[in-house]
Amino acid sequence: MLKKRRLFTPGPTPLHPVVQEAMARPILHHRTEEFRAAFQDSAAGLQRFLKTTQPVLILACSGSGGMEAALVNLLSPGEEMLALVAGNFGERWAAIGRAYGMTVHELEASWGEAVAPERVDEALAARPGVRAVFVQHSESSTGVRHDVRRLAEVARRREALLVVDSISGAGAMPLETDAWGVDAVVVGSQKALALPPGLSFVTLGERAWERAASVTSPRFYFDLRRERAAQAAGESAFTPAIAQVVALRAALAFVDEMGGVDALVRNAATLAACTRAAAGALGLPLVAPRDHGDALTALKPPPGIEAGAVVKALKSEFGSTVAGGQGKLKGQIFRVAHLGYYDPTDILGLLATLEVVLKRLGHPFALGAGLAAAEAEYLGREHA
Amino acid sequence: MLKKRRLFTPGPTPLHPVVQEAMARPILHHRTEEFRAAFQDSAAGLQRFLKTTQPVLILACSGSGGMEAALVNLLSPGEEMLALVAGNFGERWAAIGRAYGMTVHELEASWGEAVAPERVDEALAARPGVRAVFVQHSESSTGVRHDVRRLAEVARRREALLVVDSISGAGAMPLETDAWGVDAVVVGSQKALALPPGLSFVTLGERAWERAASVTSPRFYFDLRRERAAQAAGESAFTPAIAQVVALRAALAFVDEMGGVDALVRNAATLAACTRAAAGALGLPLVAPRDHGDALTALKPPPGIEAGAVVKALKSEFGSTVAGGQGKLKGQIFRVAHLGYYDPTDILGLLATLEVVLKRLGHPFALGAGLAAAEAEYLGREHA
Repeated sequence: MLKKRRLFTPGPTPLHPVVQEAMARPILHHRTEEFRAAFQDSAAGLQRFLKTTQPVLILACSGSGGMEAALVNLLSPGEEMLALVAGNFGERWAAIGRAYGMTVHELEASWGEAVAPERVDEALAARPGVRAVFVQHSESSTGVRHDVRRLAEVARRREALLVVDSISGAGAMPLETDAWGVDAVVVGSQKALALPPGLSFVTLGERAWERAASVTSPRFYFDLRRERAAQAAGESAFTPAIAQVVALRAALAFVDEMGGVDALVRNAATLAACTRAAAGALGLPLVAPRDHGDALTALKPPPGIEAGAVVKALKSEFGSTVAGGQGKLKGQIFRVAHLGYYDPTDILGLLATLEVVLKRLGHPFALGAGLAAAEAEYLGREHA
Repeated sequence: MLKKRRLFTPGPTPLHPVVQEAMARPILHHRTEEFRAAFQDSAAGLQRFLKTTQPVLILACSGSGGMEAALVNLLSPGEEMLALVAGNFGERWAAIGRAYGMTVHELEASWGEAVAPERVDEALAARPGVRAVFVQHSESSTGVRHDVRRLAEVARRREALLVVDSISGAGAMPLETDAWGVDAVVVGSQKALALPPGLSFVTLGERAWERAASVTSPRFYFDLRRERAAQAAGESAFTPAIAQVVALRAALAFVDEMGGVDALVRNAATLAACTRAAAGALGLPLVAPRDHGDALTALKPPPGIEAGAVVKALKSEFGSTVAGGQGKLKGQIFRVAHLGYYDPTDILGLLATLEVVLKRLGHPFALGAGLAAAEAEYLGREHA
């Protein structure tokens, strides 16, 4: 049988056709009016995307680079930071902090759960020296969502900054950067925006910019003050990833055309709800039954079936790549993405092939049961 | 919700990525060794595709142009021809014949049925002056398959040529041009080969070439003798559709890589079988319950629901284009393609959205019933 190459991974996600077209154009020179227009349009679109009036800086690096940029501009060596660790990516905040000599405190949650804001409040009360709290909006390794709104309230009350890795969260789940008072947000291009990896977007709030003026961590490429000054003049500090920025403008125009970031968020929410409904009907336990987000769904295989066998069969028989587990959950789960350029036909098609695969692997269930639940969930929701 | 643009029409069909890539390359000049290699590779690949040792001529025209080319090279004005008319495209053979002053006899079948070889035998016995029989391998307006193998036997016995429009048949259903003794075959690029429209492929058997040498129909662009001579020298007679030929080579290489045309035919057969199984479970009558082919499935809507409403809802809610009815069946049916670059995820996804649409339109059935039947059909088949 024919099998198309389909990515259902929480990054990279499928490229939007307008992105592919834009990246196929002849390269522009970056010190031209034509490129400056693309750059400035993109920066403005990112402000709408993240709901902030602060500049959103466009960096030529992957999401981890954006995380590093946020951290080194907000803490000086030796300062205390609190990393909320609910999965593989929470550990990354701690690792970056240690690399720069910060005093890193970790607050862990069992994988599959979020770190509750109350626990953060207690930790900050116990450690008044903590200058900043670092968290994942969407923890891609488990599908967990952190309550960024309430975490921002807690951090503000305790006079710490809240720094959010929303790399796989923005565009998939609600995020009101200014209204919630989030101090720093980091996003990656290869997620909800349906671009290839290679760009990261970082925005700092007012309190964070004040801090950035005085912190002493060594930084050059990731010195956001320089980048902000350049961007205020309509340019980037260093050579921008030109083709990607041109594609970014196209992707953001698509988001606007669709009805804005809220529409993209609703899209992911519906696809996630359909997937959870199907999982329930098929007897596949959710990794995050309570704190799940909508960027992706992490699922456990049924008893007696290896997660790896499901991943492998979807790929070998149908060409579809779902993600396996990471870190502690390696080999134990599989993950289906909803963020970005996916539509109901994609997810329903994947769920049907998942039924075929589970049946072949000997899981007992009535064929069509997952689809029936997913379709019923879809029909029960409001659509524009 | 996001909705991707998806074509489930029996031409144009989705472009294969290798085709898109090839067409995006800088244009070659056609009188160069580089292009000659692409042209000759394509011609050789088409011989494998149609299972013939005769040259397959590559024309820059749509499928109807290829039909005209076949007809004007095989009949002289005033000669008798028999057109088998089982749908909209059968009527095209008759119309071309009349445009060139042929004496056209038509043998009709009810739409949704094939013209039986026995009836052709009787017709040829009654009209010994008929020089050629014209037929659709796959009648795209109804999904009907003609029995080309037996029609070729009948025609040969009655000393008439058999000319087959296999525009939507080749690559979707078995076709053994040489082994079955088919005298002429016409194919289009925008069907199983997953190219855009713009190329037609015509091959004539030995008896047909003899006839072509003496017929007097006026022809210039479609004079296949000139084209054959040019192609023997490794070129086309007129400016070829360069980018499309380069893409054709890529498409044919993909078919070879997949395991040859038989694998592509099996792919369509499985997708068609799954679709028919779902239709049965959902209570959607087949337009061609007995003589259906595998290039597409034509379906009637359930009682009380307009076919147009199904077509419209799939497009407006999910971005998927299925074809409506043509000619006599306009507004009464809808058609789902299987030929070309489709995989199980495509068809299962479409069937799930069809369930959603039917439910919204008030059709009573158990959600998931169509998918259960399609998945069971898929699981019951042998796959490579």
